[in-house]
Amino acid sequence: MHTRSQQVDQDRRFVGLEAVFKPLAQPLKLLNDFLSAQINFFEPELQDLVRYSLEHKGKRIRPMLVFYSAWKDEQEISEDLVKLAAIIELTHLATLVHDDILDEAIIRHNIPTIFNGYGPKIAVLLGDALFAHALVLAAEFESQEISLTIAQSIRRVCAGEIKQTFHSSKDTYSLEDYYRVVDLKTAELFYVSCLLGARLGGFSEDYVNAVGFFGRDLGIVYQLYDDLVDVIESEKHTGKTLGTDFSSGKRTLPTLRLIDKLSFQDRAKFLKDVKADEISLEDFKSMLTHHDVFSDVFDILSKRIESAGLSIANYNKLPSFSHLMKVRDLLSSQVKRLQDLSAA
Amino acid sequence: MHTRSQQVDQDRRFVGLEAVFKPLAQPLKLLNDFLSAQINFFEPELQDLVRYSLEHKGKRIRPMLVFYSAWKDEQEISEDLVKLAAIIELTHLATLVHDDILDEAIIRHNIPTIFNGYGPKIAVLLGDALFAHALVLAAEFESQEISLTIAQSIRRVCAGEIKQTFHSSKDTYSLEDYYRVVDLKTAELFYVSCLLGARLGGFSEDYVNAVGFFGRDLGIVYQLYDDLVDVIESEKHTGKTLGTDFSSGKRTLPTLRLIDKLSFQDRAKFLKDVKADEISLEDFKSMLTHHDVFSDVFDILSKRIESAGLSIANYNKLPSFSHLMKVRDLLSSQVKRLQDLSAA
Repeated sequence: MHTRSQQVDQDRRFVGLEAVFKPLAQPLKLLNDFLSAQINFFEPELQDLVRYSLEHKGKRIRPMLVFYSAWKDEQEISEDLVKLAAIIELTHLATLVHDDILDEAIIRHNIPTIFNGYGPKIAVLLGDALFAHALVLAAEFESQEISLTIAQSIRRVCAGEIKQTFHSSKDTYSLEDYYRVVDLKTAELFYVSCLLGARLGGFSEDYVNAVGFFGRDLGIVYQLYDDLVDVIESEKHTGKTLGTDFSSGKRTLPTLRLIDKLSFQDRAKFLKDVKADEISLEDFKSMLTHHDVFSDVFDILSKRIESAGLSIANYNKLPSFSHLMKVRDLLSSQVKRLQDLSAA
Repeated sequence: MHTRSQQVDQDRRFVGLEAVFKPLAQPLKLLNDFLSAQINFFEPELQDLVRYSLEHKGKRIRPMLVFYSAWKDEQEISEDLVKLAAIIELTHLATLVHDDILDEAIIRHNIPTIFNGYGPKIAVLLGDALFAHALVLAAEFESQEISLTIAQSIRRVCAGEIKQTFHSSKDTYSLEDYYRVVDLKTAELFYVSCLLGARLGGFSEDYVNAVGFFGRDLGIVYQLYDDLVDVIESEKHTGKTLGTDFSSGKRTLPTLRLIDKLSFQDRAKFLKDVKADEISLEDFKSMLTHHDVFSDVFDILSKRIESAGLSIANYNKLPSFSHLMKVRDLLSSQVKRLQDLSAA
């Protein structure tokens, strides 16, 4: 079940992304230049691989959060902030290179993965080297806070992935377990992007913490959205083999909520059918509709989106506020689009 | 050729190791206690795996170098030095966990590898988490030097492994390439152990650099020795499937020296026979003897052992000197033992 190759592409249709990125044209150019310049700091043996892996340009959501959390109108983006954005993007890139081994993914961001092109050995080592270089850059700051926070985050992301790998297809895997996995594997880097961005921006400790909560909520929404896409969206739109989580037995929010809602007997039958691979994605979606799981799940999402806004509500006079809210609203509109699709 | 499972065990017969370790009883106890105490700092999801991986107790050669490079008679071992030794040992452990994926190794230090017991996914993630925790500890120092040096070293070790993976079975792989691989993948951590140990010990910059050179030479000797064991020692003594490098096509010093010495025609035939897997280990050893490759290789090793001693010769009044020389002499006697075996 886990051995077939998968096509993974997280560049889902993100309507409205460009508008939210527009004020970031200059910082993102600085980031791209900074990342390209890093290639030369790697050992010659690594440079071609690093160059290739940098071609996997993601949506740059984490750098966006770094820049917006530290946003001040009319002020130049500092070199330190660009470096922080690069550290977090390299860390994210490293997790993707290793994820693609775990998922046996052959495509990401529309180009072949390192795993696919060079095999698992090179993917293990290149991911390690990308982690290491992120921490080299972190160690160039005077304060140890960036090094400490990033290293801890990497450990937490691994803990989340390990919990998911060990438990997410087991009958004992609970909603609580799922939230813990989401918090560790995804929300952590969103949180750190906002927290350290605001810290480098020189803001008050109160704002730094508030924007950290905002980032964590946003990361949770992002992962829940991503898991829902897997169930709701068609392959044509997403470039990802549909229902891969479901067919691989990995349980995400809809499955877990459905299991909660089923009667004792129906649950036993459902779990048995899933194990025997006797439920099609269409059957599964019908069950979700029938048991009102979709409305439940979208309710959870909209509460989390609201919570993100509340975290930073006290700071609505800061220039960063409207930008961060636009990021939140963008995610919210993606969720709304999925909700409409699920009802269609 | 690369797909068969291998039994890897680097706990080779190291006669005299105990005597050299004797003065380190207390520091090594502190190190073991420190490492055990680290388990609780990992996320709960990781703790069992970390506990298991810490059971792979290596020879502690790198911590030995840390402690001896900073050695002062009659002085307590500082907490910082113990922490540094732990950082380097965790880094080494992480590289082993990832190496075992690359080598598909099933046994190390006489217990099943993480790769063998838990599969490649968990091995990738646990290795990452061990790297990350090493860097968390590094970030607890006031100065950034430890963080920066360790992160750079991890990147360099990866560069060495990548070069080896890509090139070491190709006809273009030269002696120069081999030395570069040895320098990156093995000598780097020996170098760092000595350099940072001496630095934390508060010694002069001159001594710090000298002992760094000593460590690098020792690391090179160690790797060359290890590669020679693969050719010379019998399985019974080493617990390692013999000749794995040779049969997997990975070229190390003896093969490369032999190729250099063969006539144009003999070389072409040898390379063809190796590719066709038509040379037994016994044939290969006969060729090495016939072409005087062993004497050549042991000459290279003894020069490097001498060089290590010369690096620190100026510091023969320091309490560290005699201890470091004993480590060197221990390696030297292992090499001598191999030399006797090769002549037998």
